[in-house]
Amino acid sequence: MNIETYILEDLGFGDITSDALIDDGLIGTASIIANEPCTVAGIYEAESVFHHFNLKTNALISDGESASKGDTILEVSGSLKSILSAERTALNFLMRMSGIATVTHNISSKLSHAKVAATRKTTPGFRAFEKKAVMLGGGDPHRFCLDDLILIKDNHIAVLGGVAEAVTKAKKYSFTKKVEVEVESIEDSEIAVKSGADIILLDNMSPETAAKCYNLIKSLNPSICVEVSGTITPETAPLYDACSDIISLGWITHSVRSIQFSLDIC
Amino acid sequence: MNIETYILEDLGFGDITSDALIDDGLIGTASIIANEPCTVAGIYEAESVFHHFNLKTNALISDGESASKGDTILEVSGSLKSILSAERTALNFLMRMSGIATVTHNISSKLSHAKVAATRKTTPGFRAFEKKAVMLGGGDPHRFCLDDLILIKDNHIAVLGGVAEAVTKAKKYSFTKKVEVEVESIEDSEIAVKSGADIILLDNMSPETAAKCYNLIKSLNPSICVEVSGTITPETAPLYDACSDIISLGWITHSVRSIQFSLDIC
Amino acid sequence: MNIETYILEDLGFGDITSDALIDDGLIGTASIIANEPCTVAGIYEAESVFHHFNLKTNALISDGESASKGDTILEVSGSLKSILSAERTALNFLMRMSGIATVTHNISSKLSHAKVAATRKTTPGFRAFEKKAVMLGGGDPHRFCLDDLILIKDNHIAVLGGVAEAVTKAKKYSFTKKVEVEVESIEDSEIAVKSGADIILLDNMSPETAAKCYNLIKSLNPSICVEVSGTITPETAPLYDACSDIISLGWITHSVRSIQFSLDIC
Amino acid sequence: MNIETYILEDLGFGDITSDALIDDGLIGTASIIANEPCTVAGIYEAESVFHHFNLKTNALISDGESASKGDTILEVSGSLKSILSAERTALNFLMRMSGIATVTHNISSKLSHAKVAATRKTTPGFRAFEKKAVMLGGGDPHRFCLDDLILIKDNHIAVLGGVAEAVTKAKKYSFTKKVEVEVESIEDSEIAVKSGADIILLDNMSPETAAKCYNLIKSLNPSICVEVSGTITPETAPLYDACSDIISLGWITHSVRSIQFSLDIC
Amino acid sequence: MNIETYILEDLGFGDITSDALIDDGLIGTASIIANEPCTVAGIYEAESVFHHFNLKTNALISDGESASKGDTILEVSGSLKSILSAERTALNFLMRMSGIATVTHNISSKLSHAKVAATRKTTPGFRAFEKKAVMLGGGDPHRFCLDDLILIKDNHIAVLGGVAEAVTKAKKYSFTKKVEVEVESIEDSEIAVKSGADIILLDNMSPETAAKCYNLIKSLNPSICVEVSGTITPETAPLYDACSDIISLGWITHSVRSIQFSLDIC
Amino acid sequence: MNIETYILEDLGFGDITSDALIDDGLIGTASIIANEPCTVAGIYEAESVFHHFNLKTNALISDGESASKGDTILEVSGSLKSILSAERTALNFLMRMSGIATVTHNISSKLSHAKVAATRKTTPGFRAFEKKAVMLGGGDPHRFCLDDLILIKDNHIAVLGGVAEAVTKAKKYSFTKKVEVEVESIEDSEIAVKSGADIILLDNMSPETAAKCYNLIKSLNPSICVEVSGTITPETAPLYDACSDIISLGWITHSVRSIQFSLDIC
Repeated sequence: MNIETYILEDLGFGDITSDALIDDGLIGTASIIANEPCTVAGIYEAESVFHHFNLKTNALISDGESASKGDTILEVSGSLKSILSAERTALNFLMRMSGIATVTHNISSKLSHAKVAATRKTTPGFRAFEKKAVMLGGGDPHRFCLDDLILIKDNHIAVLGGVAEAVTKAKKYSFTKKVEVEVESIEDSEIAVKSGADIILLDNMSPETAAKCYNLIKSLNPSICVEVSGTITPETAPLYDACSDIISLGWITHSVRSIQFSLDIC
Repeated sequence: MNIETYILEDLGFGDITSDALIDDGLIGTASIIANEPCTVAGIYEAESVFHHFNLKTNALISDGESASKGDTILEVSGSLKSILSAERTALNFLMRMSGIATVTHNISSKLSHAKVAATRKTTPGFRAFEKKAVMLGGGDPHRFCLDDLILIKDNHIAVLGGVAEAVTKAKKYSFTKKVEVEVESIEDSEIAVKSGADIILLDNMSPETAAKCYNLIKSLNPSICVEVSGTITPETAPLYDACSDIISLGWITHSVRSIQFSLDIC
Repeated sequence: MNIETYILEDLGFGDITSDALIDDGLIGTASIIANEPCTVAGIYEAESVFHHFNLKTNALISDGESASKGDTILEVSGSLKSILSAERTALNFLMRMSGIATVTHNISSKLSHAKVAATRKTTPGFRAFEKKAVMLGGGDPHRFCLDDLILIKDNHIAVLGGVAEAVTKAKKYSFTKKVEVEVESIEDSEIAVKSGADIILLDNMSPETAAKCYNLIKSLNPSICVEVSGTITPETAPLYDACSDIISLGWITHSVRSIQFSLDIC
Repeated sequence: MNIETYILEDLGFGDITSDALIDDGLIGTASIIANEPCTVAGIYEAESVFHHFNLKTNALISDGESASKGDTILEVSGSLKSILSAERTALNFLMRMSGIATVTHNISSKLSHAKVAATRKTTPGFRAFEKKAVMLGGGDPHRFCLDDLILIKDNHIAVLGGVAEAVTKAKKYSFTKKVEVEVESIEDSEIAVKSGADIILLDNMSPETAAKCYNLIKSLNPSICVEVSGTITPETAPLYDACSDIISLGWITHSVRSIQFSLDIC
Repeated sequence: MNIETYILEDLGFGDITSDALIDDGLIGTASIIANEPCTVAGIYEAESVFHHFNLKTNALISDGESASKGDTILEVSGSLKSILSAERTALNFLMRMSGIATVTHNISSKLSHAKVAATRKTTPGFRAFEKKAVMLGGGDPHRFCLDDLILIKDNHIAVLGGVAEAVTKAKKYSFTKKVEVEVESIEDSEIAVKSGADIILLDNMSPETAAKCYNLIKSLNPSICVEVSGTITPETAPLYDACSDIISLGWITHSVRSIQFSLDIC
Repeated sequence: MNIETYILEDLGFGDITSDALIDDGLIGTASIIANEPCTVAGIYEAESVFHHFNLKTNALISDGESASKGDTILEVSGSLKSILSAERTALNFLMRMSGIATVTHNISSKLSHAKVAATRKTTPGFRAFEKKAVMLGGGDPHRFCLDDLILIKDNHIAVLGGVAEAVTKAKKYSFTKKVEVEVESIEDSEIAVKSGADIILLDNMSPETAAKCYNLIKSLNPSICVEVSGTITPETAPLYDACSDIISLGWITHSVRSIQFSLDIC
């Protein structure tokens, strides 16, 4: 993580407000408060921002833990001018990462069987932090990027001519990579199992159809992992709990509400 | 904009799925479809991603224009393998930027007097695109970063001892910069006007209190710009229409829902 | 400031002279001496260079203060080899930044009313340091870059059709930005005032013409800031003192003489 | 040369003046005019800046050639908005590099024997361009950086114990590098010759003393190159013409006056 | 691949030999010749280097194909000066990548059952090219980096307390990742199978011991992949052909002999 | 040296094996052992890698010293997870750099007159470390890059028309650079001497021919340095000992076998 890039994005040629108003020698302490209950993520990144300004930090809560409304999660001390210059970047990490961790945690708590997973529908340039926040919320990061597992989608299948052809070809790529294939019907689910797919992705299915596919797949080979995906929201996720091992939602990285924090000078 | 950084984030050591499955020589065309009505933003960035892969593009809609559900907004042609490798990064720009532009446009359409503005509550590393999306949706970008206008907040005032002291000191910084000050009461609004602030920010006020401050400020000096801010949402924004010149919402960059697009191989 | 980039520019594959001649274990102390009277700038940067080499520094003078000929401004101690490898880069910051601060200070001291300002005529890649040096010498940095205030120049006016059209259009861009417009006649000065410009730039005028414009502008609206610019030198700047609020000189960044410093091993 | 870094330094989040005022579709042509006679340098860099904005250029004069006052040196055509956004960065390269080339050329023209050379007293981050400008003006670049020739200065000699010890040790470093040594007396000149130095630097000597050293050195070994250095200015350089092979001046990179150019929209 | 970084490493401040000797206007053509039989790799990279210098290329052989001694593999034409400046960097890619592809191909040709794989014992900063060369030679890239499959080594097992504990814990990390575990005995091979490892790495075993483990593993679960590793050389690799699915050799990236190519001006 | 780039190459999105298995709080110590006798190089780089992970290191041997089989060369202590994440990158520096230093040292030990030198046939992106390893092994780094000495090769001579023309022209470039010229015959050796070359490179000659050229050159001017080059190997190098001052081998950077090290947790 090159934290300096993010700091410079906010600083530009300098924090002219603090430069104009605050004496260099002023020392102070500030507290970062959670304004709503949440699963906290971004403590490490916020501390890195403050450390870059030579400030001291004391985390009262760890990444991945729950905070209640009003809890102080982090204290920072040192040059008051630096605290004010660093504030926004630190809070921006915390608010977005905690938003993702919180919704991941909340969906997970409604599931008894399946695990929540992220997708690659992330903010350009910020993926590593969004995937980390998903993990801190108890979710699975899914593919970090295109060099991870082989995931054969409808567009690939269309080119290859069928699920069987695609899976068979993909399995030759490298012994290190799992092969996942997207299917849209019960028939293709069976073909995917017989072709040797490690993971089968049920795309945009109703919970009922998904259940049929899931049961068929597991009856054929219980060690195959079944993922469901496709415009699933926090509300609809529990409907897929019994008919999947993994529920992946783009929603938790692309449409999540941030958590509100405030920084108070003591 | 260094588009290559964003592409590498998704590529890693390579798109192993397409490497495993798609022949280098295959040529094709794809269409990007809007899956819901929206104000489009990110066309320029999506085209830049595709151009980096030596693909040809044809935009059927311009950044800032409206699209209906089902509209093709962009066509891309060339190596099929490259189209598939570029797809996710291009769509990630479109979906987030269009989400921001759409909500900005929608709030703006409900206002007859005030203008919507963004804040610095943006995703680290992605601010330039989020500010641009706000402008494409008809909003004001507000401060790009800390070297823009001087914005005196409560923490600064606490250090300086009062609104008058802070504004007076800030006005000496540079003739090029406007001075904005945050106030939390009618009394401080008056002081801010008399101290020579160019812009007055009414922070976390009810619409009623904001109206009192607004009327006082305008009666004292009609050329002063009045901004309201503080946990305003798309729903509450219209309540401030008559009592402000600028309504700024962190919401439109930190909690916005992305617009759904899909890429279909023709 | 990424000081490492500047250090590597001078180091290349390494300081072969010191590598060839100086034992790693040798420890020493050096003093940086001002060889002429000056306003010092670049202390922070010079210290950053030395710290990058794990050297200890002790500044005897602060950025922005005056030094006499022969004054020691900075002491550095640690590995003698590292001191010699760091010397040139540290001195290059000091000599150029102090040159700018000194001439800014000297011009300012001859003015009783107007303030000296820089322009964007800076050395590519070194602007932040040159603007900082201007401020340390008591000047105004003017625009950091093109995203600062809107400055409408002759080329823009030619395209738009006139001062009034240009200013009116520019004022709609963002409430956060001041609008400055360049005028070349008394008539345009009046139009600029009536169009609502925040700052009026009198371009390439004689002191006499500038005085006429200045008086007219101030009589119409005393809160408008008046800047003069255009091949003004340290010698001619005082002629504009009474007829401007801001005197901007490209000269202080593009044609300044550096201050001489030497580093002596104690 | 990563020209984009220099462009972004001036653009920041964007050229808001042109964004506010100039329509995207406007096409135009502009001429860059020399406002004073000069040796031109920076044409390549200016064209690179314009090309980065997808503008077409036509150079009417080549790097290293002379221009008269009023000469058009470069034409640029394409989007008017882009021309205005690129203008300042392109001119900043031209004005500084041409300033250096011009003074180098002017000093050289007054010498019949010695050659002008630069030093490492350059603007941090801009050295490659400053050295190139010196060469375009007919001068020698001297050391690009610390990995070039071995140059033993007074501080090194003080550590080593004497000129002979230092030169002898340095000659063992690599067969690819010349060894230059700084001397301050006739005695040390003789020692330097006998130790096998390839180049002898006469530091801070009067022309008379330099002449004595020069004659001694050449009588002992005519193939040794003799350099003079130390606060030499364009005015004093000719005094050393007969008593040196190389006259190096920090002045031509650290204290040079820029050449004035203007960009006129046709 | 940021080819410019590699070019600048060789150029420094410029190719002074060609600058000194070759006129800018000279045009020419050159051929790159293989001086020994090889499997070619690095054509794409060499062409990228030449294209960066605005040279035209014509590849007579594709990456991954065989070349005989004396074959012309690539022609390049354009500025002679640029050809000479680009030569070394282009050849350095070709010689090292072809060395790796050739040895990988040669070992593979001696195996009838197992596949050759690389390791992470690569040259820092050059891994992507070395892995690509392995694939072009017909080998498996193995882990690109530490975010690929989970590979539990002896040091991890020592901390966890045993193979079973380690594999069980690792399998919970993410459904997308295979779990590989290193074993040093027949007993641990059985435990690894029963713990659910996807791949079992037989570390530093003799072919005889490896055969016993391999047979046991396959009898328990034929779908488990068996890898052998540990100071295997091109000479000893065939001994493991019958008792492994994957033979990984650090040797093919860390100790390979480069292939000789020469560039001849036509 | 930007060590972080090399670390990120191996880390990717993270060390998922250690993340999955090792508790954050575990502390430990590890030893790096030499598995074969060698001249050690890369200690500084390995320590830099470990320090980047906030680990403590203790070097038991210095760069450039000899190690026996089984010697502990470096101890590292701190977070066990960090030790395991840093291991491979640190060892990759050590194994390649020590391989180069060892072979350089071994060849040098067989020579009584000539010195071993490297070439520019290095791994792209890794040259600085390979040149440093050569020096630690007692060799000469030769040209760091193309801005070092002028080295006129056959391709340059072909363009210029002859050795004399090329050398004469090259000597005008800069007084700071030596001029080396490649010759392929006794006749050209004589021409090279008379043209004033500082160094003469005997290219691809048999030891017998090289000896004739060497004796001729030295008889004409004993201060000229004579280098031999062209597919020389560690085995053939001693044959040239008596007929050259410098023996340069691409072999020591492009075809060297790495030294084996292992990291053992204590």
